[in-house]
Amino acid sequence: MYYEAAEGLARESLEKLQTERLKRTIATCLRSPFYSGRLGALGLTPDDFNSPADIRKLPFTTKDDLRANYPYGLLCQPMDHYVRLHASSGTTGTPTAIFYTQNDLDSWAGLVARCMYAVGLRKGDVFQNMSGYGLFTGGLGIHYGAERLGLLTVPAGAGNSKRQLKLLRDFHVSGVHIIPSYALHFASFLKEEGVDPRSLNWRIALIGAEPHTEEARQRIQDLLGLKAFNSYGMTEMNGPGVAFECEKQAGMHVWEDAYIAEIINPETGEPAAEGEMGELVMTTLCRDGMPILRYRTRDLTRFIPGACACGRTHRRIDRITGRADDMLIIKGCNIYPMQIEQALMSMPEVAQNYLIELFKEGEMDQLRVKVEIKDEFFVEDMRALTGLQKKIAARLRDEILVTPRVELVQHDSIPKGEGKAVRVVDLRAKQ
Amino acid sequence: MYYEAAEGLARESLEKLQTERLKRTIATCLRSPFYSGRLGALGLTPDDFNSPADIRKLPFTTKDDLRANYPYGLLCQPMDHYVRLHASSGTTGTPTAIFYTQNDLDSWAGLVARCMYAVGLRKGDVFQNMSGYGLFTGGLGIHYGAERLGLLTVPAGAGNSKRQLKLLRDFHVSGVHIIPSYALHFASFLKEEGVDPRSLNWRIALIGAEPHTEEARQRIQDLLGLKAFNSYGMTEMNGPGVAFECEKQAGMHVWEDAYIAEIINPETGEPAAEGEMGELVMTTLCRDGMPILRYRTRDLTRFIPGACACGRTHRRIDRITGRADDMLIIKGCNIYPMQIEQALMSMPEVAQNYLIELFKEGEMDQLRVKVEIKDEFFVEDMRALTGLQKKIAARLRDEILVTPRVELVQHDSIPKGEGKAVRVVDLRAKQ
Repeated sequence: MYYEAAEGLARESLEKLQTERLKRTIATCLRSPFYSGRLGALGLTPDDFNSPADIRKLPFTTKDDLRANYPYGLLCQPMDHYVRLHASSGTTGTPTAIFYTQNDLDSWAGLVARCMYAVGLRKGDVFQNMSGYGLFTGGLGIHYGAERLGLLTVPAGAGNSKRQLKLLRDFHVSGVHIIPSYALHFASFLKEEGVDPRSLNWRIALIGAEPHTEEARQRIQDLLGLKAFNSYGMTEMNGPGVAFECEKQAGMHVWEDAYIAEIINPETGEPAAEGEMGELVMTTLCRDGMPILRYRTRDLTRFIPGACACGRTHRRIDRITGRADDMLIIKGCNIYPMQIEQALMSMPEVAQNYLIELFKEGEMDQLRVKVEIKDEFFVEDMRALTGLQKKIAARLRDEILVTPRVELVQHDSIPKGEGKAVRVVDLRAKQ
Repeated sequence: MYYEAAEGLARESLEKLQTERLKRTIATCLRSPFYSGRLGALGLTPDDFNSPADIRKLPFTTKDDLRANYPYGLLCQPMDHYVRLHASSGTTGTPTAIFYTQNDLDSWAGLVARCMYAVGLRKGDVFQNMSGYGLFTGGLGIHYGAERLGLLTVPAGAGNSKRQLKLLRDFHVSGVHIIPSYALHFASFLKEEGVDPRSLNWRIALIGAEPHTEEARQRIQDLLGLKAFNSYGMTEMNGPGVAFECEKQAGMHVWEDAYIAEIINPETGEPAAEGEMGELVMTTLCRDGMPILRYRTRDLTRFIPGACACGRTHRRIDRITGRADDMLIIKGCNIYPMQIEQALMSMPEVAQNYLIELFKEGEMDQLRVKVEIKDEFFVEDMRALTGLQKKIAARLRDEILVTPRVELVQHDSIPKGEGKAVRVVDLRAKQ
């Protein structure tokens, strides 16, 4: 029924397991310069942690903590125990880096394999990893999980749609890993090539790395003719494989035998009420190289109340609706880019891509949304176009309480890179 | 002393091991559609193979055989036993694909780890993989080997020199994997940035994927301030890890417990005399997913006679001097691009890059070589430049017996991609 027995543990047993692993994690943390200092100052030892809720005795760890202790400050093992590192990709500013022991890689691959099993992939399936490799954890993370599950793994990497298509066909690929924005781009490519996506053998797509709306998922499913499953992860918590939808597509199960998840009010740091939105805070329970305690992910979500029909007992989080730090404030309104995507993707006239631009008009911050329109609606009839423009602006205003400028552009005219899509451009500083 | 005891086996024991593994390989091959037909027709069974030399009873396998039996014709196991495939990257023509079981991946990683140990890398070293990942076996192949050996592996991927440099510095990287043409490009980059390569912590570079001359190696060593080791492999034989230099830098040991290597006369198919140049023919001994018998690599080399000072008993091949199929015939002379590189790289005026162009003048095939010249020699003195041009043309004529047109170009003016360098451009069809 499950890939691992831990997935169906009664809550009580699960919490007992979490407590044991939390104690062990605290003991490991005391070996790192950063945590030994911080926990030492508070006089905290493993004995202070006798239930998952005791985690609140710990202070939060932030991205700034990781930066300030770059690169080695959080390491708990001798240097020659590490076999991998992933680093944030910037070339300016202080980066962050996560170090993995062989045990960490094994446990990470196991978690990803569980995710892939949960969406219905099995030994015998052919799996094409259409995401970039290298320092981006999405590539190697999913790759190792796929091999662990025993899938025939095609390490296609990012881009080169023609070759992707050839591989999909030649090897009767049944599952893929693809970034949502590239999935939409690939749908356009198939259309141009005159390929019916339903003629392909694929039935499952894992989509992650970019937060996206339920509307975007529906569109990907419709356009590609497969089931798309939402995946959640971040490098600080290994990479992909932190939380994943099961076949019910009703929220993402957090692997609670490997992590303690909390939802807090980002202003006060206090726990959010059950089912309420807040910031996700994560603690690793199975990492011996570089455990991290109460990490402020900045990602906004909530626990979905109740049990999942799949039978897994691990709690589910809702799709990420934004990041605590990418909230835009325009004319006093708090706006998350995901709200804009949601509104756009629910409109049949809108094609695959959009771009949010912030600019200044006099002293006022203004919002412009460039929206790609499907060819059949991009007609030489000014009245029709103006009508559509107004309709989109009104739909967005209903959602975000501000009326943005709307610019209609032709399908496929917004530049599309191979990595994560850029959805927001801030022009204010340059003006 | 060695990473594995097999590396020091007496020849007699090694040949006994080869014979056992050859028998097992033949038995495995009889399960594939392609080999069961071919061996069946000849009435060959494992009992016919009682020494490595008995391999000559077998017909050769060629690239065309792989194409004709694409994709599944050489597979020996049920489909759900495979966990990886690598395919040639073309989008036109029939590609080739190699399938790996988990055992195959494990044994491949072990072979690569042995190579890395042989050049002096050890647990505790930090290793940056500066080669592309994905379907190219050089990326994942070296990556898995590095983790197997217990190196702290930085999956940097190809390109982005600024970021490469930051990673090299931040993590005190001691070893890298880099394509020779990118190594030369990276040397220019360091010079532009004003970085003394000897200020970096690196001491070892693995260079492979592109055949290159001893002169190019010397240049890479001088420019980067490290030891560069030649690596040989090809996807049909797993990828990297087939043959590798040891610390003596005196030819590449073929891992003869995992492969049987032959050198043949490419015209007659008969064994070349000991120490004579010919085409390398390879047989896998440790692959259960897709073993390949007597594969015509098209690569030209020779066995280096005598024993290596390192004590390893596995025979050494000389660096690849060209491919049987990239020989150019100009004015009746057989010319290998490697001869041109060798001549150019021995001249102090020549910078990092060159390009060979074939074109037609009337009915005659002509050869043009564009040569990048170091800044200090690229002066505004026509007489000096003409003199240099003549000097290079004469040096090349001595080597290849044909006088090419020589065009001097500025340092870094020949376009450089991120993958394997394009060294020969054939303009004749387009004229």
